[in-house]
Amino acid sequence: MLDTSCVRSLHGVNVTASLGKDLVGLEHLSADQIRLILDTAEPFKEVSERPIKKVPALRGKTIVNLFFEASTRTRISFEFAEKRLSADTVNVAASGSSVSKGETLVDTARNLEAMRIDMVVIRHHASGSAEFLGKRIRSNVINAGDGKHEHPTQALLDLLTLRDKFGKIEGLKVAICGDILHSRVARSNIWGLTKLGAQVGVCGPASLMPRGIDELEVTRLPRIEDAIQWADALNILRLQLERMTAGFIPSLREYNRVFGVTTERLSKVSRNLVIMHPGPMNRGVEIDSDVADGPHSVILPQVTNGVAVRMAVLYLLAGGSPDWQHSGGAE
Amino acid sequence: MLDTSCVRSLHGVNVTASLGKDLVGLEHLSADQIRLILDTAEPFKEVSERPIKKVPALRGKTIVNLFFEASTRTRISFEFAEKRLSADTVNVAASGSSVSKGETLVDTARNLEAMRIDMVVIRHHASGSAEFLGKRIRSNVINAGDGKHEHPTQALLDLLTLRDKFGKIEGLKVAICGDILHSRVARSNIWGLTKLGAQVGVCGPASLMPRGIDELEVTRLPRIEDAIQWADALNILRLQLERMTAGFIPSLREYNRVFGVTTERLSKVSRNLVIMHPGPMNRGVEIDSDVADGPHSVILPQVTNGVAVRMAVLYLLAGGSPDWQHSGGAE
Amino acid sequence: MLDTSCVRSLHGVNVTASLGKDLVGLEHLSADQIRLILDTAEPFKEVSERPIKKVPALRGKTIVNLFFEASTRTRISFEFAEKRLSADTVNVAASGSSVSKGETLVDTARNLEAMRIDMVVIRHHASGSAEFLGKRIRSNVINAGDGKHEHPTQALLDLLTLRDKFGKIEGLKVAICGDILHSRVARSNIWGLTKLGAQVGVCGPASLMPRGIDELEVTRLPRIEDAIQWADALNILRLQLERMTAGFIPSLREYNRVFGVTTERLSKVSRNLVIMHPGPMNRGVEIDSDVADGPHSVILPQVTNGVAVRMAVLYLLAGGSPDWQHSGGAE
Repeated sequence: MLDTSCVRSLHGVNVTASLGKDLVGLEHLSADQIRLILDTAEPFKEVSERPIKKVPALRGKTIVNLFFEASTRTRISFEFAEKRLSADTVNVAASGSSVSKGETLVDTARNLEAMRIDMVVIRHHASGSAEFLGKRIRSNVINAGDGKHEHPTQALLDLLTLRDKFGKIEGLKVAICGDILHSRVARSNIWGLTKLGAQVGVCGPASLMPRGIDELEVTRLPRIEDAIQWADALNILRLQLERMTAGFIPSLREYNRVFGVTTERLSKVSRNLVIMHPGPMNRGVEIDSDVADGPHSVILPQVTNGVAVRMAVLYLLAGGSPDWQHSGGAE
Repeated sequence: MLDTSCVRSLHGVNVTASLGKDLVGLEHLSADQIRLILDTAEPFKEVSERPIKKVPALRGKTIVNLFFEASTRTRISFEFAEKRLSADTVNVAASGSSVSKGETLVDTARNLEAMRIDMVVIRHHASGSAEFLGKRIRSNVINAGDGKHEHPTQALLDLLTLRDKFGKIEGLKVAICGDILHSRVARSNIWGLTKLGAQVGVCGPASLMPRGIDELEVTRLPRIEDAIQWADALNILRLQLERMTAGFIPSLREYNRVFGVTTERLSKVSRNLVIMHPGPMNRGVEIDSDVADGPHSVILPQVTNGVAVRMAVLYLLAGGSPDWQHSGGAE
Repeated sequence: MLDTSCVRSLHGVNVTASLGKDLVGLEHLSADQIRLILDTAEPFKEVSERPIKKVPALRGKTIVNLFFEASTRTRISFEFAEKRLSADTVNVAASGSSVSKGETLVDTARNLEAMRIDMVVIRHHASGSAEFLGKRIRSNVINAGDGKHEHPTQALLDLLTLRDKFGKIEGLKVAICGDILHSRVARSNIWGLTKLGAQVGVCGPASLMPRGIDELEVTRLPRIEDAIQWADALNILRLQLERMTAGFIPSLREYNRVFGVTTERLSKVSRNLVIMHPGPMNRGVEIDSDVADGPHSVILPQVTNGVAVRMAVLYLLAGGSPDWQHSGGAE
C-alpha cells in the first residue's frame, strides 16, 4: 500500500520531540515540535498525489469534527485528511445556541469521550475552548480555530508553504497584512514564524491592531507600501466584511485604496514577493485578482499543504511514529 | 481481526430468540428478545475499547439515518455504531416541513427501498412513524425515537447499564422521575423493566403524568423523597424547557425545589442509589451537578453502552448470529 | 469480491467510445457515449442486489458532493453510488448566499482541486455552472442539475428504465408531460431520447412551454388526452408548487383537472402506457396515486436504476474500463 519513498523520508524525521495529547496552538509548542509536524507532513503530501489516496494509519480510529462555526474549507480539509488516513469520521455542526454554552460543552465533551471517540477537531467562537475541552477529556483535541485565539493548522500550512518556497524559515521576513486584532490566523502565524527564526511584520489599520502588539517581537509596518518594501512574503488576511458595519473601517473601497495589495504596488520593488492568503479571498478588497492568480501567489499550494499538515497532526497525536507503514496494520 | 473473547461470550448467548425485521419498541418484544440484545451487546462493548474500533460484520451494508428531529447525541451514537460495524452510512436531516407529511414519508421510504438501502434508522416527531415505515418497506427499520411513543435503544442501554451495575434486572426497583407524560424514554423503560422483572416507580408533577398510568404495573411515587426512599436506581428524565412556557410547570426554579435530585435529598437514605439520566442534562433543574458527577452516577456508562446496544441491534436485525466472526467476511 | 457475471457482461460493452472528463449534459454526448453509460450500468445493477454492496473500483478516490440546492434524493443516490464504489466522499451543502456568487464558485473549485479532489458532483441553481466548473479544474465534474439546463443522470436513468421495459429505445414514443419550460429533466430527456432514436412528445400548459420548442424535433401534444393517445410511455414531471404563486397556472386543482394523469384517462386507450416520474411526486396533482402505484408504473425501478447509472458515470469518468475487476485493486 505504501511505497518506500515515504519510509525513507520519514526515517529522516527528528523524532526526539513529540506533540503531547492536543494541538491547541503554536504558542506552547517548541521549534522542534513545529519542525516535527512539518517534517511529518512531507511524506503525506505524496499520498494525495497517488491514484489511491489512502493509507491505513488511522484505520478504526473514530474522529468527530465538532464545528460550532461554519467553515466549509477547513472542515473539508480535515475531513479528507481523516479519510485519507482511513479514520471513521462524524460531523457535528453545532449551530444551535444551546450547545454553545460553556457548561454544555463539558457535557458534550464527556459524552464524546464516553462513546470512545479517539479525536475531536473543534472550531468554536470562544477563545480558549479547545484547551478547555482538551483538559476535560482523554481523547485528542485539535483546535480548528477558537475565537480570536489560535488556528494552529493554518499557521502550520503557511510555514510548510514558506519552507517549500524558500527552503527554510529562518531569517525570512514575513508581513502579515490586515485585521491583526481579530485574527487567530495572525496570532498563530506570529508564534510559529518567530519560533522558527523568521522576522514578522504586521501591517493594517490602527483600529485593527491589538493593543500590546509592540511588546511582541514584531515590526510595525504602518503602510502597505512599507510592508512591500520590507518583506519577502506577504500573508494577506481576509477582511471580515462585518468589520465595516462595526465601524472598524470606513468602507471596503477605502480599505482597498489604502491597504489593498495590487500589482501596481508590488511593481514598486524589484524583488518578487511571495503572496499568501488563508482564504476565502475578497478579491478587489484586501487583494486584487491579478495578484491572487499571479506567478508569485502560493495561495493554492497553501490549500494543498493544508491536507498534508492536518494528516501529520492527526497522525502524530494518534501516537504515530515514523514507521507508520508498520504500525497502521495491513489492509 | 476479532479476538477470541468475543467468540466465547457470544457462544453463551441464547439464540433461540430472534428480533424480526424491525425494532419499533420494547412493547412487543419478549423478555428473551430483550435479553438477546443485551447479551449480544456484551462483546460489542469490547470493540469500542480496542485501538482499531472496527469489525467487518456489516461491511457493504447501506444504512440511512433519517432524522426528522434534530438529535446530535443519538445520531452520533448510531453513526459510530454503524461505522464500527463497517457499514456505509448516509445522513438525512429532514428538517423541511414537506417531508414530514405522512404521504411523503411513504414515498421517501419506498425510494430508500428502491435504492436497496439495507436499514433505516428513523427519528420522527409522529408517534407510530417507525412502525408505519417498517410495514411499508423490506429494509430493516430501527426506531430512534417516534413522538411520545418509544425510544427503544435508549431503554436497552439503560437496561444494560443497570445489569452491569446490579448483575441482574429482576427484582430491582427503578424510579423514573420527571415528565412521564411526554417521554418516549419513560414508556420504553417501563416496558423493558417490567418485562425483565423489575418494579417500576414513576415520580413527577401530576400535570406531567399520563392519564391511565395507574392501570400500568407501576408504582406512583408522588414526591421525589418517596422515590428516593423506594428505589434502587433513579432514572431522571430531562425536563424539556418548553414545558414551562406551555404551562405544565410554574418555573424551573420551582421544579428544582420540588423535584430536583440533590445530594441533600439523597443523603436522607443510607443506601446508595444508582443515578441515571438519558441526557442532555439540565444541571440545576432536574438534577444537581454534584449528583450527576457523583460516585453513584452511571450517566457516562449509559452513553458508552449506547454504542454497544446499537451495534447489537443493527447486527441482529441484519441477520447476524453469534458466529459473526465467520459470517462477516474477512477483510 | 466480484463475481464473474459482471466480468462477462462488461466484456460485452462497446468500449470504442469514452466519456471525456466531465458529464455536463446529454446535448453534447453521442449516441455511442450514451449507450456506453447504459451498458456499463448493467453490471452495476447487480452490485446493489448483493449482500455486500461494494466493489473496490474507486477505492482511495475522493469525491465532493457540492449541492447549492437542496436535494435529498439525488444526493443520497449519488452518495450510495460513490460508497458502493468504495470512494471517500464529503458533502458540502452550500446553502449560504456567499458561495453562490460566480466569482466564489471559481475559488471554491480551485480550492477543491488544490485538495486533490478527484471528482465533484455539483447541483447549482445557475444554468451552465457545471460546465463552468469543469472548464476550470482538472477534477472530473458531474452535473447533478444546473438551473434550467440539464440533469443528465436523471435522463440516463430514464433511458435505462425504458430500455429495461421495452428492450430498446429506438422507435419508442415518449411523451414528457408538465412544466417543460423550467425542467432540466425535460431538456436532458429530449436530448437523450432523440439521440437514441425515440420520438419525443411534449404536453403541458402553453404557459409552461419554452419558446422555440417547435424548432426541436418534438411533437407538440396540446392535451393530456393527446399524449395518452400518442405515447408508449409518459414521463410525468413534478409540478413545482411555486409555479402557481408565480402565475403560471391558476391552481393545483385546475392543473389536475386538465393535465393530471388519472386511471380514467389512461383507460381510454387499449394499450398499457408505461408511467414514469422523476420524483418527488405531488400525488393528486400531476399524477394520481393509483397510477403512480399501478402495475405499469416504473417509478421505483427508475430510482433503483439511478444508483446503477450514477455508479457507471463515476466509474467511466474515473477512467474505468470493462476490466474493472482487475483495475480496482484487491481489498
